[in-house]
Amino acid sequence: MTRSALRIAQLAPVIVPTPPEHAGGTERVVSDLTEALIAAGHEVTLIAPSDSRTSARLLSGYPSLVALQREHGAVAPGVPAMLEAVQLDLLREHLHEFDIVHCHGEFAHAALLGGSAVPSLTTVHWRLDELDRQLFFRWFDRLQVAAISGAQAACLPGGNLAGIVHHGIPADHYRPGPGGGPLVFLGRMTDQKRPDRAIRIARAAGAELRLAGGIDVGNPTFFARAVEPFLCDAVAHVGEVDDRAKQDLLGHASALLFPIDWPEPFGLVMIEAMACGTPVIAWRKGSVPEVVEHGITGFIVDSEDEAVDAVRRLPELDRGQIRAVFEARFTADRMARDYEALYRRLIGRAR
Amino acid sequence: MTRSALRIAQLAPVIVPTPPEHAGGTERVVSDLTEALIAAGHEVTLIAPSDSRTSARLLSGYPSLVALQREHGAVAPGVPAMLEAVQLDLLREHLHEFDIVHCHGEFAHAALLGGSAVPSLTTVHWRLDELDRQLFFRWFDRLQVAAISGAQAACLPGGNLAGIVHHGIPADHYRPGPGGGPLVFLGRMTDQKRPDRAIRIARAAGAELRLAGGIDVGNPTFFARAVEPFLCDAVAHVGEVDDRAKQDLLGHASALLFPIDWPEPFGLVMIEAMACGTPVIAWRKGSVPEVVEHGITGFIVDSEDEAVDAVRRLPELDRGQIRAVFEARFTADRMARDYEALYRRLIGRAR
Repeated sequence: MTRSALRIAQLAPVIVPTPPEHAGGTERVVSDLTEALIAAGHEVTLIAPSDSRTSARLLSGYPSLVALQREHGAVAPGVPAMLEAVQLDLLREHLHEFDIVHCHGEFAHAALLGGSAVPSLTTVHWRLDELDRQLFFRWFDRLQVAAISGAQAACLPGGNLAGIVHHGIPADHYRPGPGGGPLVFLGRMTDQKRPDRAIRIARAAGAELRLAGGIDVGNPTFFARAVEPFLCDAVAHVGEVDDRAKQDLLGHASALLFPIDWPEPFGLVMIEAMACGTPVIAWRKGSVPEVVEHGITGFIVDSEDEAVDAVRRLPELDRGQIRAVFEARFTADRMARDYEALYRRLIGRAR
Repeated sequence: MTRSALRIAQLAPVIVPTPPEHAGGTERVVSDLTEALIAAGHEVTLIAPSDSRTSARLLSGYPSLVALQREHGAVAPGVPAMLEAVQLDLLREHLHEFDIVHCHGEFAHAALLGGSAVPSLTTVHWRLDELDRQLFFRWFDRLQVAAISGAQAACLPGGNLAGIVHHGIPADHYRPGPGGGPLVFLGRMTDQKRPDRAIRIARAAGAELRLAGGIDVGNPTFFARAVEPFLCDAVAHVGEVDDRAKQDLLGHASALLFPIDWPEPFGLVMIEAMACGTPVIAWRKGSVPEVVEHGITGFIVDSEDEAVDAVRRLPELDRGQIRAVFEARFTADRMARDYEALYRRLIGRAR
């Protein structure tokens, strides 16, 4: 097989632009993958909201949901599904132009691509163990999927699994920081991410804590109930942060607390911390044992007591080594190489 | 063109089976249309949840959302979109078997059918004036749509409008009833349907009222706020009703109150009342002036005062004539003939 340039379509979500302004892990990955594939010499077409920014050819119908909400206020509940249909129509119209189609969402694209000769790869940026995805893969039993962790792959029928590709971020997106500052929690304020555990751990360890992240629209009472009453000078909520604030926060953090309580499919913030040289104290759930190397890039724990203990052991870790592990395992270039290998395998099979 | 049998696909929604057990106007229409087309000699394939009942060939992937909820309890929010993708996959797989595809929903089917040589017709069973449908039709500007009323058609770009087909129900589904009993309100307990207006009208007219219909999940406080405090012996809420209870309720009603406060695209319950010989007192909104003939099958009003006046004028109306108008204008056979004419026009154009 030649190492020729591939003509690749990336189908992005419709909720926020690619890349996102604030939260939006999927859109961040789609953007970073797109740029890395272009840097590797491929012809990439990004199908995404019109408020996206990309070096790829951009095919758009309408702005993202958040842009429409900014313009119109509250919008009808059918808007996201309508936006997805428009992007699928663009994909259908241009399908013959691509060697491979990489879809970052569910579900209707599987019906559209089912009869097509053009091979496709789907990345699901969410847990796979719930009824929607379980029934989806039982029906679309030949849809080729790249799992984003071995933990996620374990929930996928064997016939669907094309491979496992860990996420990556551009090597220069975050710089190593000095550390030594407060502990940091970074994520939505939900009972999946458990900022309440982070607060208890910081208090028990006698450490300061900065909580960054938005209040979950699907679970608005959690913040008022489990976080807000425990805020003080030492434990502060700083809200949603942009990339610059994230660099500052993670770069100065003595550690990232990742006390999750759900089957995390990947957990992008763990590698963002590592890119800053910052160790990760994370619960043994989902992807964590694949991402964190215990005693090197952080500590994997099973309880709040163990987490407090891990805070005390942080001086054992070398921030330079953490950054080196990040560069070896979690850059966007590595992610792009892994996906390219998968693309070529699927294209070869389709011939 | 010959009057040969057509091979027709009907694509139903995924939320409840076709026909529905209780609420579900769309599924009711899809079922009645399917049966009437089969009675007219056509080959109909119904793509619908597996708990549907039909004389057509049934293509199903999974049970309806409500059946899955009955089995699993609360399900992941992606289930409806997943079920729609499965039905679209069935449509794609069997597309070559049909002369015409009739879709009763949005939005992804438009992307799937965009490149197809098989003509399609879409019926939208909802208002068309909101952002989701407005942007949908701006993009899919050649998708052929049957409006369910002239009022609904007014919100549709000219290029999309294939025709207007009022709903119908089987002539024998409801029988003429004696009337003379309480006024009836039948619909969801929402500020679109305005049961609160019905209560004030009945009180002012000194008439009894029966309110039938479920509490809207999207607006759960409305019932507690605007309906419940005003219930008494004379004004009773009887909850959701099945077809038999509806026959009893409408057949004995002296009139149906339809005091809507939204652009009703059709309003099936108006013709259900007429099938029972029961007059309709309805607000001048949406489809109402097309469905109700003022002074014959009911009264069209603009205020609560006018509605109270209309209650007093009910003895002027002839229940036998109301049933006769129903039989002439609003049976499923008439609806099926109208759709058949549209199908043949679209098939002719596609050749």
